[in-house]
Amino acid sequence: MLDRISEIIHRYRSFLITAHVRPDGDALGSELALYHVLRNLGKEALIFNQDKTPENYEFLPGSGDIVNELSDPGKYEVVFVLDCSDLERIGEPAAIIGEMPLIVNIDHHISNVGVWEVAYIDRDASSTGEMIYRLIRRLGVRITPEIANNLFGAIMTDTGGFRYGSTQSETLHTAGHLVENGANPQWLSENIYENNPLSKTLLLCKALEALSLELDGRVASMVVSIESLVATGAKSEYIEGFVDLPRTIKGVVVSIVYLELEKGHYKLSLRSKGRVNVEQVARRFGGGGHLNAAACKIRGELGDVKRQVVEAIRAVL
Amino acid sequence: MLDRISEIIHRYRSFLITAHVRPDGDALGSELALYHVLRNLGKEALIFNQDKTPENYEFLPGSGDIVNELSDPGKYEVVFVLDCSDLERIGEPAAIIGEMPLIVNIDHHISNVGVWEVAYIDRDASSTGEMIYRLIRRLGVRITPEIANNLFGAIMTDTGGFRYGSTQSETLHTAGHLVENGANPQWLSENIYENNPLSKTLLLCKALEALSLELDGRVASMVVSIESLVATGAKSEYIEGFVDLPRTIKGVVVSIVYLELEKGHYKLSLRSKGRVNVEQVARRFGGGGHLNAAACKIRGELGDVKRQVVEAIRAVL
Repeated sequence: MLDRISEIIHRYRSFLITAHVRPDGDALGSELALYHVLRNLGKEALIFNQDKTPENYEFLPGSGDIVNELSDPGKYEVVFVLDCSDLERIGEPAAIIGEMPLIVNIDHHISNVGVWEVAYIDRDASSTGEMIYRLIRRLGVRITPEIANNLFGAIMTDTGGFRYGSTQSETLHTAGHLVENGANPQWLSENIYENNPLSKTLLLCKALEALSLELDGRVASMVVSIESLVATGAKSEYIEGFVDLPRTIKGVVVSIVYLELEKGHYKLSLRSKGRVNVEQVARRFGGGGHLNAAACKIRGELGDVKRQVVEAIRAVL
Repeated sequence: MLDRISEIIHRYRSFLITAHVRPDGDALGSELALYHVLRNLGKEALIFNQDKTPENYEFLPGSGDIVNELSDPGKYEVVFVLDCSDLERIGEPAAIIGEMPLIVNIDHHISNVGVWEVAYIDRDASSTGEMIYRLIRRLGVRITPEIANNLFGAIMTDTGGFRYGSTQSETLHTAGHLVENGANPQWLSENIYENNPLSKTLLLCKALEALSLELDGRVASMVVSIESLVATGAKSEYIEGFVDLPRTIKGVVVSIVYLELEKGHYKLSLRSKGRVNVEQVARRFGGGGHLNAAACKIRGELGDVKRQVVEAIRAVL
């Protein structure tokens, strides 16, 4: 499959690159690395994402070239759909992009069912970034520092800093090669992880004050109220990562952040350790996700909502 | 120097292994890896540390064999002093150990001035664990899963999860080889980072409440008072990792945790971003460490101590 995709890259002239809604480090780093490769080969390339690049990824080399409006898709011969298990993950423009003459999917999600014209899917890969690295090696083109930094950022973020079970020896050797080619782990992690607004830390403090444990300490939850958002001046998107904190407590297998969207309406982020399936919990309330990470929205009084959620978790423990 | 140390290992029969007071992941992982190597070679070996192994490292293979009482040092021909820039870092038994016939130092601290009989010092190495890996390769012995997990833990913790500037391509390739030889990144990180006593999270909350910013937001500090230790039931060792949190705030280049040891006596942990040298700051108060991570102790009233430290930081910014 890598040969087929290499051939497509050599044969065609103009490429559109896209990824999933609310792009993360793996989506962005993979898109940008491929973008630089194509441009270095003298091709025309454009990255389109439905949603804006989060602030902490704006430093990624080439990030300023990403567009969020798709003006003339007909102009591109090939579209790369990266880090997407299905076309709908692109967001609203899925319909337009679905009409393009040649679609190439590169992805590592277990949920990818593989209904693509051309697809390179490796459900065991740590990240789409690691797969783009393999493609670049097959192409035999030079890995510039721009490419190396984007791919290192993709791999680092999608493995939780080389911590998740998906981290294999190949993942670490790839990261080593990327550093040889100019990737700077410190610069990347400082920009991605250490560039938070002060209000985020203040909000975390407020959320921690509202930490509570249920089911003999196996479920830990924090509440982010509208009041604490207002008091700290934080945006609700700053809660990203909060849910990982209660999970670090000994004995906790499920951690939850209740974000108050409006009075009596909560968005839940759920994370679990081991084989506890929080996707099943979220699905019960109309949400979804993965085995260890899921989300849903629930209406009701906070105490009631928490009781319902604890009951739903008890059923999967 | 690796040849000389290999020769020593082959020539002698009984080895004592020690490291610095309040041993961290690098000290423990390095000691345990070397311990397994020596035992696999049929040597007699004992690990002695003045201070107890922190709970979150008790799972490391062989950890149960570490002793905190040194009964018969005369019985050992050679002592390995790991991850120590000078003999005093061992703690009180430094005097006894200093009398032993052959002392071998393996260390990566910049503050190591190298007054050792036999020393393998690499101030650019990410960790002592990475140096022990090189020694093992030189020895040509098999890297068992016990050795691989201990070394991966050492390297992972001392690079902040492959994030610090000390992370080089060799560091990542070493980590890759360790995974090939049985290291399990997920198991290690869950045990080390996601097995915290509840009181640690409660203490973090109290420390965050005492967050303050100085020098136009470039210095962030938290205070862990005896009062908050008592109120949460946390041990002072639980502050490990706290100093990394203020560093995630945008604009902050130096973060500090002031741990109150007793009234008017503080232990400071300092971390920096980029090229800000906190080792220089710590040295000014009789401490030491690395460019981006250092520690020292200061006596005085908290307000005074903070003013002195801020002045010392201003001088290196």
